Amino acid sequence: MTRSKFARFPAVLLLCLIATNAGAAEDPLSSWNDGAAKSAITHFVHITTNPASPDFVPPAERIAAFDQDGTLWVEHPIYTQVIYALDRVPALVKAKPELANVEPFKTVLSGDRDAIGKLSTDDLFKILAATLTGMSVDDYRDQVKKWLDDARDPRWRQPFTALAYQPMIELLKYLRANGYRTYIITGGGQDFVRTYAEDVYGIPPEEIVGTAGATRYGYDKDGRPVLTKEPKLLLDDDKAGKPEGIHLMIGRRPYAAFGNSTGDRQMLEYTKAGAGERLAMLVLHDDAQREYAYGPAQGLPATKVGTFTQALYDQATREGWVVISMKSDWKRIFTFEP
Amino acid sequence: MTRSKFARFPAVLLLCLIATNAGAAEDPLSSWNDGAAKSAITHFVHITTNPASPDFVPPAERIAAFDQDGTLWVEHPIYTQVIYALDRVPALVKAKPELANVEPFKTVLSGDRDAIGKLSTDDLFKILAATLTGMSVDDYRDQVKKWLDDARDPRWRQPFTALAYQPMIELLKYLRANGYRTYIITGGGQDFVRTYAEDVYGIPPEEIVGTAGATRYGYDKDGRPVLTKEPKLLLDDDKAGKPEGIHLMIGRRPYAAFGNSTGDRQMLEYTKAGAGERLAMLVLHDDAQREYAYGPAQGLPATKVGTFTQALYDQATREGWVVISMKSDWKRIFTFEP
Repeated sequence: MTRSKFARFPAVLLLCLIATNAGAAEDPLSSWNDGAAKSAITHFVHITTNPASPDFVPPAERIAAFDQDGTLWVEHPIYTQVIYALDRVPALVKAKPELANVEPFKTVLSGDRDAIGKLSTDDLFKILAATLTGMSVDDYRDQVKKWLDDARDPRWRQPFTALAYQPMIELLKYLRANGYRTYIITGGGQDFVRTYAEDVYGIPPEEIVGTAGATRYGYDKDGRPVLTKEPKLLLDDDKAGKPEGIHLMIGRRPYAAFGNSTGDRQMLEYTKAGAGERLAMLVLHDDAQREYAYGPAQGLPATKVGTFTQALYDQATREGWVVISMKSDWKRIFTFEP
Repeated sequence: MTRSKFARFPAVLLLCLIATNAGAAEDPLSSWNDGAAKSAITHFVHITTNPASPDFVPPAERIAAFDQDGTLWVEHPIYTQVIYALDRVPALVKAKPELANVEPFKTVLSGDRDAIGKLSTDDLFKILAATLTGMSVDDYRDQVKKWLDDARDPRWRQPFTALAYQPMIELLKYLRANGYRTYIITGGGQDFVRTYAEDVYGIPPEEIVGTAGATRYGYDKDGRPVLTKEPKLLLDDDKAGKPEGIHLMIGRRPYAAFGNSTGDRQMLEYTKAGAGERLAMLVLHDDAQREYAYGPAQGLPATKVGTFTQALYDQATREGWVVISMKSDWKRIFTFEP
């Protein structure tokens, strides 16, 4: 985490300053077009934060849950963490030369994109286990941070952290300005997302719930305590694992939840099942020109990465979840747009 | 959680009110005698919260970690959660009459204290699994809350929640008033502690890290989402499991850690190994008259519940951890004392 110029002020004073400025007239959701999605958000915030409202939610209970891949940042053509794992293979083989002729590492090293694209799920898990575990949690964080500094995405040639959606960053800030804590609930690796979530989304490590592996406590050669990342899965934070992870790590039911795929269904169901007013929203990727278009809901092209089925779309309609159209609800998608 | 009269005020306003009153002259640690332990606490807080100090810690990083049993409340003669599990057995057998003649439930039902005291660890795990899992997380919380309302401890005839140590409650408040977030890191059940920690310690569910089992997401007969507690251990939050649990649930190294037994050793090592000023403290139970006396450190009687070995005591001396003597450092232990 970088220490900002505010870091030396006590939190209490900072909050008081924020409170004093709360009356400013600027639209906190300026990258959103007026419409049902934007209205659903502002209506929800008004009725849950107005002390006179029957749906008022005490500040301590204001939890909003956000999926990450495809909801807060780009997930196509492939999850960023998978690109990271593939990019780590050369360094891995340098440290363990015996892997150079072992599959699937051999294929990854070949650089043959077609062959890499055809790797099985089992092969992919071997690569993830080899590149995401075995090191200390500190070394892992440093490796990811360095990669994020250097790597560029294949389409826009931007740092991956620039592929966060500006309307969602505004939404996170808007909710926090109204007393909500904004948690990420991601199928991605918890430690991976923690390395950049504070800088990119303003979300601290303790508010990241993700797919998590075990660590092992031990000591380095100088006797200093070290936590080593182990290839043992503790929480598969996808589908049913999302509400389970929310209970494990937070212990409170969210009042608002945001996703974009069938992996978020249970989280949205769980959120909406709570008493009082709850908000559930799904981002629909229907903008091939500015980002990507995939479903297969609403006749959009099918995909294996971030599948949004018609059944999910129908459930959203039936249960009052709000679908966000990237194409029509978002005025601007990225900050780097002209 | 009960809604206090403050619950309807925005958190920001509340914090501003607290800030305004921060200059009040009352001793926030009035149940502590003057001495090395109290000085260690106030010195640590001063140098980590004064912006001019080289050991200043930004508010977002101010994490303090507290063991619970034996550190925040009484753990002798036996952990409160074990008493809860034993007390649940009649209700369990009522729901499943076939268990009445099955060990270890038969022994528990007999009420024979000697026989119950001799149950093996395996038997105890059977009782814990049967009484702490199988129900929804909501039902479990209700069962624990009801028990806590009714049950009384065998020595003082107080509700178990009255057995929290007043000096530690003051310490929690003092740290929070100085921008620290106070996490519980307990070998006890995470969901068990969450049921009362907000009322007793002012610590919300998301700041409880404990031994945690899996939950299973499903639907009740009306199709409503339900999380059911499963007899599958995800995190054994004791010994090495404490720093592992801290990484899993918080992702930041604490600046201060408080324990009372060998189960807290790794948490204190991990805390002290961080850069800058860190505080590590151990409560020594050396007051048989007002509470209990056990070690076996310093010639105190040996115990299986909350063992404080001489090796731990020596490590504390060697590594600059501060030992709190209940007898001499605490002016008052319980609020119910005359």
